[in-house]
Amino acid sequence: MQFNKITIIGLGLIGGSLALALKESNKVERIVGIDPNIETIEYALGNGIIDTGSPEINDCVEGADIVVISTHVGIIPNTAKSLFQSASEGTIITDVGSVKSSILKAIEEDLPEKLHFVAGHPIAGTENSGIKSADANLFKGRRCILTPTEKTDSASINKIKLMWETVGSEVHKMDPETHDHIFGIVSHLPHVVAYALINSVLNTKDSEQLMDFAGGGLKDYTRVAASSPDMWTEIFKANKDHLLEAISIFKNSIEDIETAIQNEDFDKLKKELEKAARTKRSL
Amino acid sequence: MQFNKITIIGLGLIGGSLALALKESNKVERIVGIDPNIETIEYALGNGIIDTGSPEINDCVEGADIVVISTHVGIIPNTAKSLFQSASEGTIITDVGSVKSSILKAIEEDLPEKLHFVAGHPIAGTENSGIKSADANLFKGRRCILTPTEKTDSASINKIKLMWETVGSEVHKMDPETHDHIFGIVSHLPHVVAYALINSVLNTKDSEQLMDFAGGGLKDYTRVAASSPDMWTEIFKANKDHLLEAISIFKNSIEDIETAIQNEDFDKLKKELEKAARTKRSL
Repeated sequence: MQFNKITIIGLGLIGGSLALALKESNKVERIVGIDPNIETIEYALGNGIIDTGSPEINDCVEGADIVVISTHVGIIPNTAKSLFQSASEGTIITDVGSVKSSILKAIEEDLPEKLHFVAGHPIAGTENSGIKSADANLFKGRRCILTPTEKTDSASINKIKLMWETVGSEVHKMDPETHDHIFGIVSHLPHVVAYALINSVLNTKDSEQLMDFAGGGLKDYTRVAASSPDMWTEIFKANKDHLLEAISIFKNSIEDIETAIQNEDFDKLKKELEKAARTKRSL
Repeated sequence: MQFNKITIIGLGLIGGSLALALKESNKVERIVGIDPNIETIEYALGNGIIDTGSPEINDCVEGADIVVISTHVGIIPNTAKSLFQSASEGTIITDVGSVKSSILKAIEEDLPEKLHFVAGHPIAGTENSGIKSADANLFKGRRCILTPTEKTDSASINKIKLMWETVGSEVHKMDPETHDHIFGIVSHLPHVVAYALINSVLNTKDSEQLMDFAGGGLKDYTRVAASSPDMWTEIFKANKDHLLEAISIFKNSIEDIETAIQNEDFDKLKKELEKAARTKRSL
């Protein structure tokens, strides 16, 4: 066995899939699941996703090699802090949040010497959520980013890397600010834009008639804009500065197009569109 | 036979699919295809999509009940005008352009008494283009919008309506300004936004590294942004005023979100996101 005990807090799509994938790897002696919803625990136990489970965090972290916090971004720091007393010497706490700097700052300032924290972000997910969508292949061939700081213990980084490799991920390391800058632009900004686009339709007085014709291009955005408002409010909050910078870059880009249309500078307009269109081909 | 001769100018995805669908309906005596590309004509003849074809417009419009202009938006008015001499008395010219007011204005001001013009817009399309993507079912169950004006002959409207119903479309009528307002928001604006979003990534100095992580949300937009820059430059130009209004509404929506983040007004932010997220469910 590569791991003795791994405790996963939050059995949603990510936590549930991680538990199931680790289970199927046969490299973990015991997988413990924690979730406030008792039906989730029962489902996970009944379907062989976890070995034991509980709604109570403090019952389940003793003796764990690794505790994975796979809750929403907003409660990751306090969830980590709630483990500081009960976790055993040497336990590595890690997370799966899609924002890293603010989480690291909140956790590292109070982290007791006996514990380690390694911040992580598996780039995986589907439109589905919840334990019933758990998929042992969710992380296979997908990247997982670890964002160590100068305070991060290197043996702990390697152990978390091994855990993600065990479920098929390709592990990359980068510093937390770079991570938040990149995901501010490639992930958080597209969500802001999708929400804003749908709201522009709703803010028009004949919006019901407009939605009848959503097939004309708008429909591509409704999938993104349907993502959980709670989850994205927390992400936007946690990545405030990088996201505001991304929004500002985006506003400049749309104003370049707007100005070209206003000035009837259609050569310039075509150049702007060609720049974007080439990107698809290079992906 | 419901129709004697229908001539289709421009055998791309829309024109080719219309020819094929009419052919399979067995309700047209003769379908004539016109395209500047001789290989396109040969393919359409060889695959039973048209009965006769030519690269020369003036060879093929005589005696046609209907001439369908299915070229790019930018050349629709001049293509229509090039028929004014050669078309026979009573011929109905129609188009498939996704902008209507500017096309109507350009054509109606010069339309000879002997001809009729009915403006149309089939809401259909795929990521593919060209005659080889022609699909007899492309219009089945899809809407086709006709935008008659006070000058439009009502018998001609009914004949064009019948043509689209023959290929399975559900025909709606609306006035051209309403059409351009609606499609400015639900179709042209989403394209502007997708182009601008991809360009914001490209305008960032570490854009190559950013594109490595496009799976985080950006990828949903690259499909839209890969659409033909030529075609969309023409559409944006033809629908300038309605599109500028749509961009202005959108900028207000994104600034509502930006301000809520700046002011750390996360209740307001969540309300903005919830408004958008509800829309998916209602579609």
